[in-house]
Amino acid sequence: MRRIHVIGIGAGDPDQLTLQAVKALRGTDVFFLLDKGEVKADLTGLRRDMLDAHLPEGSYRVVEARDPERDRRAEGAAYSAAVGDWRSARADVYGRLIAGELGEDQVGAFLVWGDPSLYDSTLAILEEVLARGEVAFAYDVVPGISSVSALASRHRTGLNRVGRPIRITTGRRLAEGFPQGVDDVVVMLDAHQTFRQYADQDIDIYWGAYIGTPDEILVSGPLAEAAPRIAALRAEARERKGWIMDTYLLRRNPGNR
Amino acid sequence: MRRIHVIGIGAGDPDQLTLQAVKALRGTDVFFLLDKGEVKADLTGLRRDMLDAHLPEGSYRVVEARDPERDRRAEGAAYSAAVGDWRSARADVYGRLIAGELGEDQVGAFLVWGDPSLYDSTLAILEEVLARGEVAFAYDVVPGISSVSALASRHRTGLNRVGRPIRITTGRRLAEGFPQGVDDVVVMLDAHQTFRQYADQDIDIYWGAYIGTPDEILVSGPLAEAAPRIAALRAEARERKGWIMDTYLLRRNPGNR
Ligand SMILES: C[S@@+](CC[C@H](N)C(=O)[O-])C[C@H]1O[C@@H](n2cnc3c(N)ncnc32)[C@H](O)[C@@H]1O
Ligand SMILES: C[S@@+](CC[C@H](N)C(=O)[O-])C[C@H]1O[C@@H](n2cnc3c(N)ncnc32)[C@H](O)[C@@H]1O
Repeated sequence: MRRIHVIGIGAGDPDQLTLQAVKALRGTDVFFLLDKGEVKADLTGLRRDMLDAHLPEGSYRVVEARDPERDRRAEGAAYSAAVGDWRSARADVYGRLIAGELGEDQVGAFLVWGDPSLYDSTLAILEEVLARGEVAFAYDVVPGISSVSALASRHRTGLNRVGRPIRITTGRRLAEGFPQGVDDVVVMLDAHQTFRQYADQDIDIYWGAYIGTPDEILVSGPLAEAAPRIAALRAEARERKGWIMDTYLLRRNPGNR
Repeated sequence: MRRIHVIGIGAGDPDQLTLQAVKALRGTDVFFLLDKGEVKADLTGLRRDMLDAHLPEGSYRVVEARDPERDRRAEGAAYSAAVGDWRSARADVYGRLIAGELGEDQVGAFLVWGDPSLYDSTLAILEEVLARGEVAFAYDVVPGISSVSALASRHRTGLNRVGRPIRITTGRRLAEGFPQGVDDVVVMLDAHQTFRQYADQDIDIYWGAYIGTPDEILVSGPLAEAAPRIAALRAEARERKGWIMDTYLLRRNPGNR
């Protein structure tokens, strides 16, 4: 029976690998590295460096493939449809890789950025491949340090306040309004600096880009003051590197809701 | 200058330590192990085993202390007050340990369960110790695998659905009502199996106790069916071991809100 590890590799710092992840790497015959286009070539490089650091040369095989792109222009209802189509196209690719590149008794691995449970579709795609019934395999999941944990650690802050809840959401959702019933909100996947929409409120921001990498940038403080500073830093960094990954915590003062 | 590492050690599986955590352990002179009473002696034992596994004998010192207990009977406004008093009593203990047991140029460490950013007060206590101005030190935070990531990995599920938000909350908050504007809710610190309150709704539960340890118990399925099964397993395990730690994800079908 083919076996697959879905391995969370942390959000940028190679030392964020867990011992469990290193063991899973060492037990893998074939690594599937999926490239999401030029801008993410840096991230594929980081994965290759991790393999070099932890595995003897010649002990494993790497198969690179192009991960189908999502139609990023879709909005509203078309957004879910575009995500669905994309998932299905990815299932074609993943199924072909598993059936074609992994021997019957071999172990394959997908290296997932951060933690596989947060805004990542690898598990859903593997379930879709299994549901199609064209190739059988067993799989397990190795948790990783998420960009959310990495962000909090670098700012040396908790995510929640005592006994209070947390929201984790996307930039797209935050644009629809500040979430109800919660004052501590972590935002991922925000291409539009949606925090600026709330800069007139009594909110602190803890922002980080390229967290855990040599390019890491951190800014924190009252949102009204920090927002323009972050906007400038973000634009400059994005220009320089060609891509950016950033995450932030918005902490609203509940007294001023 | 005294230095302190606040090290997330994962939620039960010693292999959930990150390479960064192992390096921080190796760079530590004095470990502060705070015992929260008999029921948690097992957890102190796990920390000692981690030190044994990764550090040469005689290369470090362990200082054990009793962590002041919180008044768990307090409800409502008295709850926050009780938490505040407790934090202050803990700051007395932590301050005394750092000033008394750590040499001027030494490195100390606190080993935090799971990830230090989630429902843990170590960072707030260290800030309180610093604010008092009686002892100076620098500190950093090493992120850890949280029980939330561990839960998701064992159930091989994502926390969010595509493009949708997540809530992380406590049993106490969940008792006040199902959170608004979100259908994927992770619940921690629930001594009362509050999920039973929602067993008449179209919700799936992914539940885990002692996740990552040899005692791990996992149950998932439609809440109406799973709730009585979890209640029975939980009562039996709690009885047998004397304590329990459990976390769960409630996933509501938005079509039936
Ligand atoms: C597709 S999601 C994947 C999240 C990942 N599974 C995790 O656990 O962090 C990508 C988003 O994660 C966040 N992210 C990932 N790595 C990051 C990093 N090193 N610094 C800042 N944000 C990061 C950004 O918000 C980015 O838009
Ligand atoms: C005080 S909080 C600390 C959380 C920790 N900082 C983390 O990141 O998981 C304790 C709660 O964490 C959850 N928890 C911690 N370890 C767990 C485990 N091994 N299995 C299940 N739940 C766990 C339970 O909900 C418990 O009530």
